[in-house]
Amino acid sequence: MPATFAIIVAGGSGNRMNASVPKQFLELGGKAILMHSVKAFYDYDPAIGIRVVLPEEHFPLWKKLCRQYSFDIPHELSKGGTTRTESVRHALQDIGDEGLVAIHDGVRPLVSQNLIHTVFTTAFRTGNAVPAIPVTDSIREITTEGNMPVCRDSLRIIQTPQVFDVNLIKKAYALASGNDYSDDATVFELLGMKICLVDGIRENIKITLPEDLVIASALLSLHHPG
Amino acid sequence: MPATFAIIVAGGSGNRMNASVPKQFLELGGKAILMHSVKAFYDYDPAIGIRVVLPEEHFPLWKKLCRQYSFDIPHELSKGGTTRTESVRHALQDIGDEGLVAIHDGVRPLVSQNLIHTVFTTAFRTGNAVPAIPVTDSIREITTEGNMPVCRDSLRIIQTPQVFDVNLIKKAYALASGNDYSDDATVFELLGMKICLVDGIRENIKITLPEDLVIASALLSLHHPG
Repeated sequence: MPATFAIIVAGGSGNRMNASVPKQFLELGGKAILMHSVKAFYDYDPAIGIRVVLPEEHFPLWKKLCRQYSFDIPHELSKGGTTRTESVRHALQDIGDEGLVAIHDGVRPLVSQNLIHTVFTTAFRTGNAVPAIPVTDSIREITTEGNMPVCRDSLRIIQTPQVFDVNLIKKAYALASGNDYSDDATVFELLGMKICLVDGIRENIKITLPEDLVIASALLSLHHPG
Repeated sequence: MPATFAIIVAGGSGNRMNASVPKQFLELGGKAILMHSVKAFYDYDPAIGIRVVLPEEHFPLWKKLCRQYSFDIPHELSKGGTTRTESVRHALQDIGDEGLVAIHDGVRPLVSQNLIHTVFTTAFRTGNAVPAIPVTDSIREITTEGNMPVCRDSLRIIQTPQVFDVNLIKKAYALASGNDYSDDATVFELLGMKICLVDGIRENIKITLPEDLVIASALLSLHHPG
């Protein structure tokens, strides 16, 4: 297995959480949400090069929180951009050119060791790995005339960590210049390469809205009681 | 407000839960999942005509569970069919022709009083109301060539209870003969009428997989501690 990196993206302003601090800094089970995400990669492999992407104005708050929670897992910081795509590009410039990189949403603190293992080992074979889960609810599409049903069978909900060959994803980001993409798989496709989907896990939720923090907190206490 | 009915559909065999009993009978916070769904409508309005749709072979188990949990909320039973659509059609034949009917998944035990109020009052004005929530994750579509990104902004996740004018939904189900539909909104559209979407709630999850029961259990204990 080649050298590995993890880029944890925490650039969001957290406006949707109705919280005064950005959502990645909110407490979940005794530490900031973002700390869970960082720790998951360290627990998987302490040799992994972990890089957290934050808006530069949040660096002091993050460092203060790390002291406050005695959070001492080694990691580097990269400056966030004005979009997610720009944030990831900055972080990619700060890592080496060989091996695999996992790009992970800082607000997905419940990622499992098994899932991290699956995406790294799959990407080692194929050049990329992106976790996906089936859609179990009915879906509708809003149209100019109203709304209409959409067949859910062929749809998948996409998660992170998404793992890529470092050299290839850097080339893809060079092509993405100036645009914003909702995830890294979509950027990777600019190279004309196929995305390799692997089975994600339902618990690996993205904390976007206040209800998500309630669900995450509950899932965490069930998995790690007391 | 006209007379109201609630049809709680619990026809599933529960194969995806790896459980020996169908999922609607699994325990959640001290009673069967299905009992929470029934109680939500009774708590909203004790005068509502509640009808539970079950496969006929599950009638004895359900009655035994009601005795076991001392569950005495008044309700009638209707015989489930071989598909969800057939199950709902059976239940619609068993209720009156006037007023509004809420059709609800038995495995959505966390429906709130506010949401039930919203769908009934909206349908009173418009003839139908269907709860929907935004998609916050990235979505991909599986195609014959692999998979491709889908714009999530126009997609909505559809929930229940879906409320309809009784007379109209009966006419729609008469048109649906022989086919299976994933939800009642899609059947209602056979009349050529528009679906009226209202804001659903994220907690109103459908318990389909074992992880969902963990999440529901946690959400329930957070909302009703002790």
